[in-house]
Amino acid sequence: MSHSRLVGFSDGVLAVAITLLVLDLHVEPGNGTDLLTQLAQAWPSFAAYVVSFLVIGVIWVNHHSILQLTGSIDRPLLFWNLLLLMFVTAIPFTTATLAASLADGSPTDIRVATILYGGGMTGMAVAFTALYARITDILTRAGAMEPRTRRASIVRFGAGTILYPLITLIGLLYAPAMLCGLAALSIYYLFNQTGTPAIEPEPPAPTR
Amino acid sequence: MSHSRLVGFSDGVLAVAITLLVLDLHVEPGNGTDLLTQLAQAWPSFAAYVVSFLVIGVIWVNHHSILQLTGSIDRPLLFWNLLLLMFVTAIPFTTATLAASLADGSPTDIRVATILYGGGMTGMAVAFTALYARITDILTRAGAMEPRTRRASIVRFGAGTILYPLITLIGLLYAPAMLCGLAALSIYYLFNQTGTPAIEPEPPAPTR
Amino acid sequence: MSHSRLVGFSDGVLAVAITLLVLDLHVEPGNGTDLLTQLAQAWPSFAAYVVSFLVIGVIWVNHHSILQLTGSIDRPLLFWNLLLLMFVTAIPFTTATLAASLADGSPTDIRVATILYGGGMTGMAVAFTALYARITDILTRAGAMEPRTRRASIVRFGAGTILYPLITLIGLLYAPAMLCGLAALSIYYLFNQTGTPAIEPEPPAPTR
Amino acid sequence: MSHSRLVGFSDGVLAVAITLLVLDLHVEPGNGTDLLTQLAQAWPSFAAYVVSFLVIGVIWVNHHSILQLTGSIDRPLLFWNLLLLMFVTAIPFTTATLAASLADGSPTDIRVATILYGGGMTGMAVAFTALYARITDILTRAGAMEPRTRRASIVRFGAGTILYPLITLIGLLYAPAMLCGLAALSIYYLFNQTGTPAIEPEPPAPTR
Repeated sequence: MSHSRLVGFSDGVLAVAITLLVLDLHVEPGNGTDLLTQLAQAWPSFAAYVVSFLVIGVIWVNHHSILQLTGSIDRPLLFWNLLLLMFVTAIPFTTATLAASLADGSPTDIRVATILYGGGMTGMAVAFTALYARITDILTRAGAMEPRTRRASIVRFGAGTILYPLITLIGLLYAPAMLCGLAALSIYYLFNQTGTPAIEPEPPAPTR
Repeated sequence: MSHSRLVGFSDGVLAVAITLLVLDLHVEPGNGTDLLTQLAQAWPSFAAYVVSFLVIGVIWVNHHSILQLTGSIDRPLLFWNLLLLMFVTAIPFTTATLAASLADGSPTDIRVATILYGGGMTGMAVAFTALYARITDILTRAGAMEPRTRRASIVRFGAGTILYPLITLIGLLYAPAMLCGLAALSIYYLFNQTGTPAIEPEPPAPTR
Repeated sequence: MSHSRLVGFSDGVLAVAITLLVLDLHVEPGNGTDLLTQLAQAWPSFAAYVVSFLVIGVIWVNHHSILQLTGSIDRPLLFWNLLLLMFVTAIPFTTATLAASLADGSPTDIRVATILYGGGMTGMAVAFTALYARITDILTRAGAMEPRTRRASIVRFGAGTILYPLITLIGLLYAPAMLCGLAALSIYYLFNQTGTPAIEPEPPAPTR
Repeated sequence: MSHSRLVGFSDGVLAVAITLLVLDLHVEPGNGTDLLTQLAQAWPSFAAYVVSFLVIGVIWVNHHSILQLTGSIDRPLLFWNLLLLMFVTAIPFTTATLAASLADGSPTDIRVATILYGGGMTGMAVAFTALYARITDILTRAGAMEPRTRRASIVRFGAGTILYPLITLIGLLYAPAMLCGLAALSIYYLFNQTGTPAIEPEPPAPTR
């Protein structure tokens, strides 16, 4: 299995998923309600669009970082990568459901949609951490990373598996707070590498 | 015809098709039924989403494996590849039809949708086997594979042309069993190469 | 402007456009009409799906062939390429309109949809021929092709600008005949290079 | 962060966004209004499709030009690139809203949709200019561009941040004039590089 084709396919799926988010945005000029009111009422769609866009953008950045660590691809790695992509591809659905619940749903619907959205993010984080664990396992067996360093780095990389459920709990109290928390977390991770110092001196990779 | 552009285009189509599956998932918060009930009733959509995602994921893995066998691309190869992509691209449609039939259709509708879904998978397997036969034909004529080895490997690779109709027959008795069977088959093939031993010692390919 | 990025972007657009064709396929199990009847009534959608898929597939093959002729990209070439992609991207729309007209429209609607579909194909062929003329102009000025050979090859490559309107005229008499004609033409061009002999001995390009 | 993967992902998003524009085109043969009338009434959709297609096409060309200036990618650059893509991805939404308002909305709706469309373009231009400023900052710090040249080139590159609001103001008087203005601007920029002379003698890049 070639590294470049794995990267190309994953990038393709991520690019399509991030762009499909736009399909959740829609208004109907001429349906009796003036457009400005419709746009104002659609704020959950816009907020969810921005947050999910940032989340997928950060997934892409980190996906790139961890796949750069190794050139050898095995079947379990492919499996975890496919599971990760399955959760990412579902984000436009959980995003649309959350936005529609905030706009038209009952308080119970909003809580259900919050759990669906946060649950999808958590599932993504679990698959991502499993993928990272597999990659570092390959490194450890090849002697390129010490088992102790690996364990510490998995704990750091896996922070999302704790943070996402926590943010979801906050969302159960007030859903927009979940969106703000996710946006803040994404921007933080966009500027700060998720890996540990031990990984940062990466093997020199071609820059083009 | 350049090998890399064939791979790039095929990967693009597979990436878009696998991501479009998410469009089959949708609920309508605020339509009178509470969201939790709607999500529960939409279980066929979720099950079909997971199964079709796995199936396309495995197609991608195997597509990569067999295209790596040769660097020379001819017109018949392009034709079979295009036919394969045509069946793959239709999967979001057959998936949506099966899920909607399981949710809202009559028993007859479910059987028709099962045949449509299984038939699409079978057509895909036939096109895939024809593509494989063409690739190994190129190898045999170049002296890189013995005709006898080739015949045996085609039989192995073409197992899907028998397995998919069989699973479809089971689906006529109980449609969810088809989905379970396809999921199990996909996970099996994700971890086990479909090719024969004769192909496995592949010509060394660049890993990046 | 890098050749590889032009090819990558064009391939991306072609891959998305060919996959979006599937969105034209949809039935509604449980709407009162049994699924088998719905599928039978949707035959124009299936026929149009197959034909448009073949047409875009052949566009991709030929696009690749002619872009391989030169490594130098200038602004007019970019313009014609963008115009070509604009017509290709519209194919899912003209396909859906033709299929819906065949299923539900009046005889006049069918004729209007036939002109829309054939007109889009003709526009595509004109943009494609202009792109080819630009590429061969670059070759001629670089001394890699004789002006006389170029003129002859443009006439051959531009056959679609005549053939598509002719097929459209036949479609005005009987629309399904247009679909059959386009399918036959596409399969012919999939197996036979559109260029002239003078182009076929291409400058050796990397096969991977 | 590898340059080639940044380019690949960005190209993927741009290719999907430009192709999703086609989803804004739709008519319903057999709904009581004849197809020709429906197509004529849908002129805003066609006009907006062409204009948005040209705009995204030119974004792609310029994105390529400025990313070619440097091989080193840092986190702020990733952030501005993601923000740019977020505005580009929203274009199919603002395009559909403008077209639907022109077709069915009140005069106030049309003005609101004009501000939404022009505002999205302006946001895109601001993100694009910030991306350009970041790239040239990297160049300046590496000694590859003089600070003075940089300032002048940012002013030139950032012209869109002034031009888009101006065109939007014209659109408030007569929306179709905005579309014509944007089309003219896009075609101008397609044939004329946005950069300054100082950038044009680019470091020699591989042409394939």
